[in-house]
This record gives sequence, C-alpha cells and structure tokens, in this order.
Amino acid sequence: MDTKPIIPSSHDKLLFTPGPLTTSLSVKQAMLHDAGSWHFEFNAIVWQAREEILALAGLSREQGYEAILMQGSGTFGVEAVLASAMPPAGKLLVLANGAYGERMAQMAVHMKLSHLVLRCPEDSTPDLEALERTLREDRAITHVGVIHCETTTGILNPIDEIGKIVKAAGRLYIVDAMSSFGALPIDFGVGIDYLISSANKCLEGVPGFSFVIARRAALLATEGWARSLSLDLLGQLKAFEKNGQFRYTPPTHSILAFAQALAELRLEGGVPARGARYQRNHEVLVGGMRKLGFRVYLDPRVQSCIITSFYFPDDPRFTFAEFYRRLSDKGFIIYPGKISQVDCFRIGSVGRIFESDLRALLAAVGETIGEMGLRMQPNAQRNAADAGELMTSNASRAN
Amino acid sequence: MDTKPIIPSSHDKLLFTPGPLTTSLSVKQAMLHDAGSWHFEFNAIVWQAREEILALAGLSREQGYEAILMQGSGTFGVEAVLASAMPPAGKLLVLANGAYGERMAQMAVHMKLSHLVLRCPEDSTPDLEALERTLREDRAITHVGVIHCETTTGILNPIDEIGKIVKAAGRLYIVDAMSSFGALPIDFGVGIDYLISSANKCLEGVPGFSFVIARRAALLATEGWARSLSLDLLGQLKAFEKNGQFRYTPPTHSILAFAQALAELRLEGGVPARGARYQRNHEVLVGGMRKLGFRVYLDPRVQSCIITSFYFPDDPRFTFAEFYRRLSDKGFIIYPGKISQVDCFRIGSVGRIFESDLRALLAAVGETIGEMGLRMQPNAQRNAADAGELMTSNASRAN
Repeated sequence: MDTKPIIPSSHDKLLFTPGPLTTSLSVKQAMLHDAGSWHFEFNAIVWQAREEILALAGLSREQGYEAILMQGSGTFGVEAVLASAMPPAGKLLVLANGAYGERMAQMAVHMKLSHLVLRCPEDSTPDLEALERTLREDRAITHVGVIHCETTTGILNPIDEIGKIVKAAGRLYIVDAMSSFGALPIDFGVGIDYLISSANKCLEGVPGFSFVIARRAALLATEGWARSLSLDLLGQLKAFEKNGQFRYTPPTHSILAFAQALAELRLEGGVPARGARYQRNHEVLVGGMRKLGFRVYLDPRVQSCIITSFYFPDDPRFTFAEFYRRLSDKGFIIYPGKISQVDCFRIGSVGRIFESDLRALLAAVGETIGEMGLRMQPNAQRNAADAGELMTSNASRAN
Repeated sequence: MDTKPIIPSSHDKLLFTPGPLTTSLSVKQAMLHDAGSWHFEFNAIVWQAREEILALAGLSREQGYEAILMQGSGTFGVEAVLASAMPPAGKLLVLANGAYGERMAQMAVHMKLSHLVLRCPEDSTPDLEALERTLREDRAITHVGVIHCETTTGILNPIDEIGKIVKAAGRLYIVDAMSSFGALPIDFGVGIDYLISSANKCLEGVPGFSFVIARRAALLATEGWARSLSLDLLGQLKAFEKNGQFRYTPPTHSILAFAQALAELRLEGGVPARGARYQRNHEVLVGGMRKLGFRVYLDPRVQSCIITSFYFPDDPRFTFAEFYRRLSDKGFIIYPGKISQVDCFRIGSVGRIFESDLRALLAAVGETIGEMGLRMQPNAQRNAADAGELMTSNASRAN
C-alpha cells in the first residue's frame, strides 16, 4: 500500500510552539518499527531511557532517584504525581503565575485534595516572602508545587530559591519542568522530590508519554495513597522493577522515537549545547520581532528562552486569526496567547529548529505585516531598560 | 543525521499478541510528520477520526453518540469512563472472568467507588441469572461493567444478553471492547452507554490513545463528577466541541497513524472483512497448533478469534522462557499466559498479520518443539466435541 501523507506538503510546516514541536526526521523514522511491549528487547530500551533521563538530571539510581515513564501528555504526569504523592491528609500549596500552575490547582479540585493557591501576576515570579510566611503559618501544608518555565507567558520561575524555602520549612517539593528539562540546568541538590517533564519538549521526542524523576524514598512512602490506578506512580515504578515493563500498554513507537531523540541530544552536546541553541533562537527571534515593531510581554530578567509572548500590534487591522492563517500559509505555525488579561500571541524557540528557521519566520512575519497593511512602531520597546538587559536574560539566571 | 534503527533486523519481529501489534508500514509512515495540536489541519483529522469511529459502530452524532479520544493506553480510557461517569453515590457492578474485569474493580478501589464484583471462572461466561438477581436485590447498583473479549483467556462475553438484563433493570451499561471493536460487530441497540476501545487493537493503529463511544445524554449528566482532571471525559468532549482540540497535548503522531489505519480498514472492506481475516487467522492457528499437539484452553463455543490460550505441553522439558526465546530468535513474538490457575501461553491472531504469517509461525513452533526435544501428543483435543464445533465458533456468535 502506498503512503498517503495525511498533511500534503513538500515539507511539514515548522512549529514554533511549546509542543508538540518540530522533531528531526531521524527521530520520526525510529517509529517505523513495531515493538512488543512485553519483549525483552523493548524493555531494554525502556530501561536505558530511564537511566539516561536520570543522567541528564545529573542523577543516578544510586543517589536514590528513579525516572518513571507515564503514558499520556505532560498533564497526566503532573496529575500522577499529585494523585500518588499526596497523603490522604496532605495539603498542597500551589505557586501559580499562569495556566499551568492553575492546572495543578484544578487537579486538586478534581481529586478533592486539600490545597491552597498562592497567586501572583502572570508577569511576575512568586512572592518568596509570602511563600515563607504561608509555610510558617499553615502547618497543614505538606507539599509545594511550582512550574519551572510557565509557558503561559514564557516566564522562568526561580525554582532554586523556592526550593530552599520549601526545604527549610521541611515540606516536599514538586517541580513541573515540562518545558525546561533538557535545555535548562536543574539543580536537584536544592531538594526536589518530584520533577515532571515530557518526551516532547526540550528532549525533542514525539508526544505520547511524560516522565517523573522521583526521590525514591519519598515515592516508596506513598504506598496505598494513589487515587487512580492508571496514574499510580508507585505502581508504575514497581512494574518497571518487577519485569521492566509498563503496567499498561506503552506508546511503543513514541518510546522508540525517544531513544533516538536521546541519542541526538548526546550528539548535539547535551543539555548545555541544546540550551545554547534555544537561547540563540530566542535572541534572534526577539531581536527580529522588535525590529518589526513587536513588543515583548515579559521583562527580559524573567523571560525564558523557551517561548516568548508578544503583544498584539496596536493597529486595529490586526486580528490574530488572519495573522496566524497567513503565517500558516507560508509554512510557519505560531501559538495563540494564553495570558488572562492581555492580548498576546506566543512564539516558541524549541524543537528541531535553528537560527535559520527563526530568520525565515521573521521574514514571513515581515511579509505578513505588509500583506495586512499593519502600521508598526519599528524598534518598539516595552521600556527603555529592555534593550540592555536582553543578553543577560535567562541563560545565566537558570544556573 | 542517519537513521539508526533501534531494533536492528531486516524486518521487525512479527507480533502475535493482543497489542501493541504489528501494523502496516504505511500506517507507521504516516507518523513521519509533525503536526501542531492547535492547528486547524490537525483538528480536522481529529474530527474526521471521531466521525469514523462512530460510523464503524454503526452510529452517528445525530443518534446521540459521541466518540471521544483519550490520551494513554486502553486502561486510561476505561478509567476515564469510571472516573467520569460514576455519580458520587453510584455503585459499580463488575462482571469479571479475567484480569481486565479485575482491573475495573481495582480502579474502583483506587477511586474509592462503591462497587461489587460478580466473578465467574476464567473459562466461563458470566452467570446471567446471578446478574439478574444481583441487580434485583442490590438497588444501589447504578452501572454495570463488562469486558467484551477478555484477552486473559480469549473468551468472548455475551454483551448482548448481558445488556438486555442491565437495561431491563434500568442500569447504565459500560462495555470494554478494547480488543474486539473493529473486528467483531457490536450492537449498540441493546443500550450500551459507554464503550471503550483503543487505536492499537483491531483498528491496527499504533498505541498512544484510547477512545470512548458515549451516549451523549448519559455523559452530559455527569457534570461535576470527574475524579481526575486528565481523565475527565466530559471535559475532553467539551474541548473537542469548543475548538476541535484535545485539552492537553495529544499524541499527534499516533493520531496521524490512526487516520491512515482507518483508511486501510475501509480499503480492506470494513469490520466484516477484518473480522473474517482474523477468524481465518485463528482457524489456521488452532488447526495447526492442534496438529502439533497443543491443547486449547477454552471451549470453542466461547473462544474469540482475537487471541487463543494454549496449555503448556505436559513434557517437563518445556519452559515458557525457552520456548518464547527460541520463537523470538526466529522472528516471532508470542505472549505469556495470564490465567490465574492454569499454565498457558497466548497467541494473538490480530494486527497486520495474515494466514501466511500464521503458517510461518506454526512452522517455527514445530521447529522449536524439535529443538527442545518436546514429546507432544499429535492432534491433541481438550475434548471430543472441540473439533466439530471449531468452525461454528465466535464469528457467528458475535452477531
């Protein structure tokens, strides 16, 4: 039978999104195989992937950590942690400055977990004094959850500083590093108990599963707590340890792709090289967009290199639908905004994309501005301080 | 970058399993694309897949049914139904004659759902009188769940007869048709409220998501009940209806593969043609295995054409590990047993495999018997009645 590409084009449209993102052809070609989920050859691949995830985090099993794969999207991985790790009488404190923090709170509502949300504006990082005070005053809180890179805006939350406060207060610490792990260094030394990320973000695999890096002692203490069978994280770990298998059918093709993606990450030079590429992508993007007259939503001091929110142009002729469609027709897919109070769109710098792809996107944006007849303010800045600070932004902060 | 196949071989080993199973090359090639999950082109594919699932079931949206895709394995789909559809004061009756029925009960335990399990032996279909009596006596029961093809053994449960009793008693009816949908006809006229199946069974897609066919009115009545955010079935439907999108990152590549798999199912001649191929595969398998001296576990009157359990040979030189390994070395992957009381292994007849593949497997099994020096009883039968009944087994029963 002939292959009929579902989306006909000479090449796929490039994805400038927080995921699913553009992956290499060789990662996708790794999916041209059917593997048996019970089979020892496949289980060896799963075992190796789990080892490599730990190594990427600078950890090992001997240090008391485990990498546990979980079917579904990243959200399933986050919910697996909350569903499994929260004790029956536990209380979760969520630090929220965007949709993904709010999503943790929604999970708590669905699972009827006792919880508290400490909110701050979407363009600001959490109030550390308020965190310290809340942990001091509310002794019922057992766990604190935070998003590392909140892709609602692209803000990078200070997980080290937060972790120090959480640990000083003797609480367990959950970090959603969905869109940062594999590109930004993460220090487990601060005391992260559970970190969640996904195959399809900075590791440049395809979607289908997430993974959790768990402190083994913390997870072993959760026996009998899981509120879901599918999302039972300890149950999943036990199955991997018993016979190397997922408890339930794994996305075998996504896992074969992931193994290839990990090999390509090694070839690129690991986390530092990948982070540097994304940082360069981000700088090219922001510099070019500013020249075209777009304003960046976030202060560069808190802006990550993963995804960037841009204000809609002031010109009333601008509609996001038309802008998006015209860029799509040129082969570029950007992302809508997700900020609650402000009209923005987002452009991602991650995935198998390079400076040249960003430059091609910028050319298409310029062309689209012309087609739509938009009046822009060249070299627009949000404030005078922005320009000088751009180059000292997140790459250094993340260390 | 060159492709490095993760599992090196001139061709993949053939999978004679209940899934993940062997798929066509063209289905896998459909995954050589990256699609944006927010993008209208991808959403059109999702919409079309949902329509086609309904059509395969002989249903339409106008008749009040919805097909809802859910990330994760089939188990995630089943748990999504229970997590979403069970009212706070609901009670689930599970009819269990194998591991998948028991799994529904485990879900109820994890979610602290009130439930009752009506068990029968793994080689028998549920006791319909006991079902009727239980529903009469226990008025708290609101939902009844059953597995159509229980792949623990390969038994086919009489979902029509069960459905009539459930409906006469005014209860809601949940059918796990994971390994039967797409090959065996299923009559929704009997009153199925929720049916769960998967991309990677008889529809011959790749793993990554399951789907639920839900009676819309039943699902709409579940507002506020979902015990999980990720597995919130009504939430998932609302998102599809709002903007055509999954709530959380979908396994985009698996869905592209699924669209191709649906096209290939149409080309093959739909559900009747696929069911006939599997039936033929099953007959070739059972006939050949019997000639080699293997005994079938189930009575042919309840045996499905999906997967078949065979007793271990009596010869003490037989170990499953060696038998499995030798078949694997020849390029054939079979499946271990899952029956609680009896030593069996299983061989599936589903996926992109044909009579010729079954004959090749049988030759490899014969060779392996010789290599292991096993003494077999040629033309072994479980009982005298088996032979005559083989040809009148499940294909006709399923109607």
